[in-house]
Amino acid sequence: MSDRTEFRDLASPDALRETLAGLDLAGDREVVALDDARDRVLAERVDAGIDVPGFDRAAMDGYAVRARDTFGASETDPVTLAYAGSVHAGERPDVDLEPGDAVEISTGAVVPETADAVVMVERTSEVDRGDGDDGGGGNDANADGSGARAVEVRTAVAPGEHVMAAGADIAAGQRALGPGTLVTPREVGLLSALGVDRVPVRARPEVAVVSTGDELVPPGDELDHGAGEIHDVNTHAIAAGVRDAGGDPVVYEHVGDDEAAMAATVEAAADECDLVLTSGSTSASAMDVVYRVVEERGERLLHGVAVKPGKPTLVGTIDGTAYVGLPGYPVSALSIFRTFVAPRIRDAAARPPARTATVNATMATRERAEEGRLRLVPVGLVDDGDGDLLAYPVDKGSGATTTLTAADGVVPVDPDTNYVDADAAVTVQLFSPSVRPPRVLVVGEDDPTLSRALDDVAAPRYLAAGSRAGRRSRRDGVADAAALAGPDADAALDRDDDGVLGSWERTWGLVVPEGNPAGLSGLPSLVDDDVRFANRDTESGLRARFDAALDDLAADRDETRDALTDDVSGYELATRGHESPARRVADGAVDAGLGLESTADRLDLDFVRLGTDHVVVVAAADRRGKPGVAALERALDSGAR
Amino acid sequence: MSDRTEFRDLASPDALRETLAGLDLAGDREVVALDDARDRVLAERVDAGIDVPGFDRAAMDGYAVRARDTFGASETDPVTLAYAGSVHAGERPDVDLEPGDAVEISTGAVVPETADAVVMVERTSEVDRGDGDDGGGGNDANADGSGARAVEVRTAVAPGEHVMAAGADIAAGQRALGPGTLVTPREVGLLSALGVDRVPVRARPEVAVVSTGDELVPPGDELDHGAGEIHDVNTHAIAAGVRDAGGDPVVYEHVGDDEAAMAATVEAAADECDLVLTSGSTSASAMDVVYRVVEERGERLLHGVAVKPGKPTLVGTIDGTAYVGLPGYPVSALSIFRTFVAPRIRDAAARPPARTATVNATMATRERAEEGRLRLVPVGLVDDGDGDLLAYPVDKGSGATTTLTAADGVVPVDPDTNYVDADAAVTVQLFSPSVRPPRVLVVGEDDPTLSRALDDVAAPRYLAAGSRAGRRSRRDGVADAAALAGPDADAALDRDDDGVLGSWERTWGLVVPEGNPAGLSGLPSLVDDDVRFANRDTESGLRARFDAALDDLAADRDETRDALTDDVSGYELATRGHESPARRVADGAVDAGLGLESTADRLDLDFVRLGTDHVVVVAAADRRGKPGVAALERALDSGAR
Repeated sequence: MSDRTEFRDLASPDALRETLAGLDLAGDREVVALDDARDRVLAERVDAGIDVPGFDRAAMDGYAVRARDTFGASETDPVTLAYAGSVHAGERPDVDLEPGDAVEISTGAVVPETADAVVMVERTSEVDRGDGDDGGGGNDANADGSGARAVEVRTAVAPGEHVMAAGADIAAGQRALGPGTLVTPREVGLLSALGVDRVPVRARPEVAVVSTGDELVPPGDELDHGAGEIHDVNTHAIAAGVRDAGGDPVVYEHVGDDEAAMAATVEAAADECDLVLTSGSTSASAMDVVYRVVEERGERLLHGVAVKPGKPTLVGTIDGTAYVGLPGYPVSALSIFRTFVAPRIRDAAARPPARTATVNATMATRERAEEGRLRLVPVGLVDDGDGDLLAYPVDKGSGATTTLTAADGVVPVDPDTNYVDADAAVTVQLFSPSVRPPRVLVVGEDDPTLSRALDDVAAPRYLAAGSRAGRRSRRDGVADAAALAGPDADAALDRDDDGVLGSWERTWGLVVPEGNPAGLSGLPSLVDDDVRFANRDTESGLRARFDAALDDLAADRDETRDALTDDVSGYELATRGHESPARRVADGAVDAGLGLESTADRLDLDFVRLGTDHVVVVAAADRRGKPGVAALERALDSGAR
Repeated sequence: MSDRTEFRDLASPDALRETLAGLDLAGDREVVALDDARDRVLAERVDAGIDVPGFDRAAMDGYAVRARDTFGASETDPVTLAYAGSVHAGERPDVDLEPGDAVEISTGAVVPETADAVVMVERTSEVDRGDGDDGGGGNDANADGSGARAVEVRTAVAPGEHVMAAGADIAAGQRALGPGTLVTPREVGLLSALGVDRVPVRARPEVAVVSTGDELVPPGDELDHGAGEIHDVNTHAIAAGVRDAGGDPVVYEHVGDDEAAMAATVEAAADECDLVLTSGSTSASAMDVVYRVVEERGERLLHGVAVKPGKPTLVGTIDGTAYVGLPGYPVSALSIFRTFVAPRIRDAAARPPARTATVNATMATRERAEEGRLRLVPVGLVDDGDGDLLAYPVDKGSGATTTLTAADGVVPVDPDTNYVDADAAVTVQLFSPSVRPPRVLVVGEDDPTLSRALDDVAAPRYLAAGSRAGRRSRRDGVADAAALAGPDADAALDRDDDGVLGSWERTWGLVVPEGNPAGLSGLPSLVDDDVRFANRDTESGLRARFDAALDDLAADRDETRDALTDDVSGYELATRGHESPARRVADGAVDAGLGLESTADRLDLDFVRLGTDHVVVVAAADRRGKPGVAALERALDSGAR
């Protein structure tokens, strides 16, 4: 077991970068329809095959004329020309201009060959021509029966005026777009104008995504928790990341730890794709199999990197195809993917480098680092109310998928740095260019009323880590608002804190199965009867409220709380979510759970009322001016109605 | 005709914005597969339906223990526990820990119920147990036959250590993601962890794209230039823009100016989509029909906007569906679309606002504006060599599609501004966030050797506007390098300019049909014989070279050049591209064209040599340090080999 977890010589992050740079991931060239070319990259130069426009084109509505016929014309001294017909866009001109003629023309129409300019309609009038013929020559009687119609021209035009000459936009044979050009709507426009409906583009690198591990179950399928099953996170998250980087993910059904199946999948992936990404299951055999395949059919280039998270990263080739073995934990796998692998996929797809997805921020709290390894510290961002960003570490452990969404990016901490001080200026690499700091950051009690109210707030972040966590976070200058409950809430209301954005009452007690089979009637029966109980964690205000009630009971009985709770089976079962105890009741795992009346209602369970509690949302003093805080206040106000 | 082109009361840009804001474009909600959810926006809140993890999970490889059994253990004073079996990830534990037992456990595995902590493997050793039993209790003989195996534990662990409790990542019932969340790889990861494989997202607004005009032909189909046909640009470019904004373009086959067909298409589009976009053909009847449909079946809200380009924009409803009539010229249509319509589609799709796609730049040259209208001046960008951006106006007219790719964005100029001064600080709205200034800007002679060399340069921009244009642009401090030809090139070589990045010779003369049917033998025969000729424009170095040769001939004959050229039919036919005259020869339109020997070869035409010319690429003095200029120099060097 220790063979695979101990790395005596960790490669440096730069060595990892160089090794990856040495791999060939480039896809081929392919031809796609014009409407599918958006967001692709041209594989080769596109020269104009035709003149655009393909003819001398009227740039204005007006009259096509021979410029010399207008020389000397002015508002006060107009020239009258003979009306010689008309030509509209998309029509072949069937008129020949003779000297002294004008042909009505619309924008985009073909300028008749013998005309060389257009007079805009605003500088002309159609007039009835008398007998006099001051235009010289001219078709007095036209094919279209316009008879003696004439056109008064009140301006002189130069040859070429208001005419776009054939090829003036782009001429056949000219370079239109170079290889490597990213096709955006404007390039689609130019390609359309050139008549190019099949576009040669760089093929997206095909990237095999293989998750390994007996414990993985596709999202959507039922989990057997008791058998340690979890949903396969990496397959989908990495496939999405591959697509973000301009690659084409090829998802292979996740393979368990069966050697033959895993070897077959990895080899097939190497055969079919330009890059194979596995994310290791945590069991020993999985890594061993991949290891063996790499050793037998390719080359191991690097194993073990001085990066946290991400140490067990493996790079090599299989049958000549690039291979990267990512760690199994989603946070680790995505960190390594994003930092090291995605840029290479981007290169191979010839996509422009990602718009610098970094922001400058100030570290809100001190963060220890570990010497000797590049640390990628996940951080959340919050606007400090003055338009500057604060970064605070988010660490629920790399095994936690919520770290992905609770953090906005990572702060890279050099291997030779011991810690990052509070107030240090840091550069945050955003998880993606579309990441924005939340408009409002609420930390505190996990409460369903607050959760619902947040649905009406744009871009909030809610870290439901408990009332105590909220109090600390507000004190540390991180949270915009703390959601307090239990005694914390009482204290806030007593202070008549002018930071209060909203407050509401909730009824708490014991959630019990339908019909209350254990016949629980209140706190004494919980303490005295032989029931299995599920509690909340000590960060929650509800737990503090419960403990305060136990203290009261203990005082009544002249006992200690510990003496009371020693008799409550499961008092130590400190679950994390506001519904967690109730769900254990619903599952039949326990006879009673600490919870809210609203939760019991929602889950169709019965409820033994023990008291009421308040939730109070209190803004940090320096954040009252944030629009997100105002939006939260409004949402809480309408939620309370 | 004047009814439709004269707008007596132009609406302000703000009025246009407000009118568009009043339209309802919102799509519905739909459910998509997890792997299709990337880049979509959640339609509703997603709460955790399960605990993640669903069981107490080992966070380390090691041994699951009862924490109290390790109390007091240290490196110097280890505790020995009985090996009681093993549990791997994805396995249901089949061991019960008795006091004094340790169960081998891998990361991710279920911690057996009676264990409450994990000791990491690095702080343990398996040992042969002697007869003594210092662990108390324990399974000395295990089911798996491990007999007297024992585990030495060299550290104490607290309850819960290296165990991720059920629900510690996220507990069932907790808020996971709020409505309006953009789904990026990290959200895909969290949804996967929660087992959500069907994701409720906002439907993309369906946007009908209808181009109108008899002259339009789909890209890929042949054009009849003589009939004034052009390719349909707007359909494809706007559809791509709709997709960029998060909408779902529904392309309707472009309709001609037939009233019934157009009315039917627009009405069907209004029925099927959330927004109908037409781009007007330039013919009168098209607009009239759309007008009539809006008047009869809906409401006209606004027509004519004080924006240049974009004046004829029309906003209304048809059968209750939002309708915007865009101008017909691609540059105008896309300007209005991008500035006013795309943000509304983005809103309706609930996408976060586009990352501020603006950059600060300095105006390189003075630009006149027109009072009373918001002008959106297309500008190109170039790095001035010191890392600052210069913006230079690009105006080939809104009829030119190459304006789309020659410009990088627009500078909005207020209605009350007369001009933008050179050196003025301006804000450029980039055409899209992915727009980057070119790495090197080359302006000058249209030359095939240069075009080929640029294929080896990353992100160049080449404005092949002629040698004279190149000289001016370098002088004005815009171009990084000028491509000079003709006498300009001679002068540069004579100066022995140390800015020269590369130069090459080209053979020029008369491109003639195969077999040279007119029997042209040189310049005298062109002047003296009765042939139809195609010339180049006066910006090109080749034209200057040709004129110089004519000057020499005129001097020999003691005549003026004008006298000579008066006899050359087509001398004034100044075509724009280096291949344009040759292509006219190939088409049979002329008997001879000014061009290069290489062009004649490429097009399988014959050639009458008149002389040699040089192309010299000269960098601006202050741009020698730009990496793109160095890359260009390298490419020219290898191209010359």
